[in-house]
Amino acid sequence: MKIAILFGANSFEHEISIVSAIALKKVLKEELIYIFCDYNRDFYLISTDKITSKRFSSGEYKKDKKLELKKGGFFQKNLMGEKKIAFDTVLNVIHGKDGEDGTISALLDFFDINYIGPRVEASVVSFNKLLTKLYAREFGVKTLEYKTLQKDSKRDLILNYPVIIKPTRLGSSIGISIVKDENELDYALDVAFEFDSQVVIEPFIDGIKEYNLAGCKTDKYNFSIIEEPQKEEFLDFDKKYLDLSRTKRGNEANLSEELTQKIQDSFKKLYEPFFAGSIIRCDFFVLDNEVYINEINPVPGSMANYLFDDFSKTVKELVNYLPNRTKVPPLYRYINKIQAAKGK
Amino acid sequence: MKIAILFGANSFEHEISIVSAIALKKVLKEELIYIFCDYNRDFYLISTDKITSKRFSSGEYKKDKKLELKKGGFFQKNLMGEKKIAFDTVLNVIHGKDGEDGTISALLDFFDINYIGPRVEASVVSFNKLLTKLYAREFGVKTLEYKTLQKDSKRDLILNYPVIIKPTRLGSSIGISIVKDENELDYALDVAFEFDSQVVIEPFIDGIKEYNLAGCKTDKYNFSIIEEPQKEEFLDFDKKYLDLSRTKRGNEANLSEELTQKIQDSFKKLYEPFFAGSIIRCDFFVLDNEVYINEINPVPGSMANYLFDDFSKTVKELVNYLPNRTKVPPLYRYINKIQAAKGK
Repeated sequence: MKIAILFGANSFEHEISIVSAIALKKVLKEELIYIFCDYNRDFYLISTDKITSKRFSSGEYKKDKKLELKKGGFFQKNLMGEKKIAFDTVLNVIHGKDGEDGTISALLDFFDINYIGPRVEASVVSFNKLLTKLYAREFGVKTLEYKTLQKDSKRDLILNYPVIIKPTRLGSSIGISIVKDENELDYALDVAFEFDSQVVIEPFIDGIKEYNLAGCKTDKYNFSIIEEPQKEEFLDFDKKYLDLSRTKRGNEANLSEELTQKIQDSFKKLYEPFFAGSIIRCDFFVLDNEVYINEINPVPGSMANYLFDDFSKTVKELVNYLPNRTKVPPLYRYINKIQAAKGK
Repeated sequence: MKIAILFGANSFEHEISIVSAIALKKVLKEELIYIFCDYNRDFYLISTDKITSKRFSSGEYKKDKKLELKKGGFFQKNLMGEKKIAFDTVLNVIHGKDGEDGTISALLDFFDINYIGPRVEASVVSFNKLLTKLYAREFGVKTLEYKTLQKDSKRDLILNYPVIIKPTRLGSSIGISIVKDENELDYALDVAFEFDSQVVIEPFIDGIKEYNLAGCKTDKYNFSIIEEPQKEEFLDFDKKYLDLSRTKRGNEANLSEELTQKIQDSFKKLYEPFFAGSIIRCDFFVLDNEVYINEINPVPGSMANYLFDDFSKTVKELVNYLPNRTKVPPLYRYINKIQAAKGK
């Protein structure tokens, strides 16, 4: 099986995507090809032996083969016309904008290319933290309380500090602040509004337990271990950046069977309606033995490979369970009927 | 100003889109070009004088110029290489799948093409009737009560009949049934599940008042008249199909100032967070003087042109208020920092 790692793109998390792509070279046993989408949204086929972060930061990748994305796949121009790049499936490793907001999913769907990754609907409900909450609650998973604020609205908020402020639509801790009292509020809001026109405000609960579970569904659920991520107050972007290059196995949290079950059940409730075809990592909070969803990461850093017993096998299996795309058959029922009635 | 009408696509509402595109020829005063997306998702530039429904149902359109969608626009191959098709903005007139589910929006965003139409997020929350309800309630607009059912779930529903059963993700009355008692339920569910894996079930309230309001936001809100649509029990697909070719001005409903205001306020609450750049039609119910959202149509039939005093002017104005796309600047902060630390 040949897998095309698709990474980069016009995203604040472009660099993290490069790191994820590099990490996957170490863990995936299938044949890999690498398709890089640069900040400018041009595609390049990068030789697997040239996958180093410097190749991208230096701009050297521009010497590689340029590709065009169109119906049926990625194509490379040559003297004879063009050649289709051969692979069985794309693995979408683009984090944040373009990759997790539904854009790349829509392109791959429209052009009829197989891929592992969230579909458009799944992307939108997980990328937008407010929609995540509405979605989770509808399907029976608790979330922390929250308030929202629009960029142009009055900042007349009454809050119980400390709170955590998040741009509605970004991942990887970008633009996120913990606010300990009212004096810090304005600055934190300004930071968040640099990245989005809307923010979500949640209570910051010191010492709340956090547990991450990754998985996907084939003929059954394939779960990773549950990890308690190491955290200082919370991981800032720099630390998360380093953390994301992980390929070393994570540490399994020591949980009761009951809590493990609760966390897995919550994962299923979130995965089932929209997330077929993707490997996601759900970050849960646990408070008084109750499970709350914090974030759904439909393209997690390094694809959360370090949480799986055999990540390569998981990917290989999922390829056989990608959702069918609805195809509407070409029919002109109504127009033909009207034309028949008109005698034309 | 030159507007490219984009229509057709792989959608159950493909034919309705053709009818909408034809209707717009009569009402838009700007220069128009027509880009047809066929069921197979190939694009064609159709001469404006050849815009007849028969051209598409007969397959004659295949004699027209084939286009390719890629970065910056639609391109036509010629002996010298390729020519970019000139226009100022696309008007997305693709109904249902592809056009209203976020797919076309993502393509146009990714390839950096101006367009009037819902953005990806707006598409997803309006295309999925369940998400519409969650979204509307979050932003302060009432919806009717509802239940949902998955295709594979047990059908052990306790319902107060009559109810209306809708596939979660389709428009234009496709797959919708009114169910008067339990005996009719199974068949209606089977019909709906032909089109979607999930259905939404709502009370069917005989004689409930329905009012439609279309509009968009430029430097202010541009509202259409409020129309009380003619309806028999409810419009089936055949009737709606004919109804959608409308260019004749609708009849303004005779409403109190208070109710008009309430309906317009509800429209604003729904439009504001996600719908910038689009002309939408909101279909409201009114019950005991309270306003409920039934559906948000982000690409309404014939673009709801018949509800506007001067639809052409509305379109022309909106072109100046299309949302800015976030562009992430090409930066390699973290990779450069690490490489500096490594001394490389």
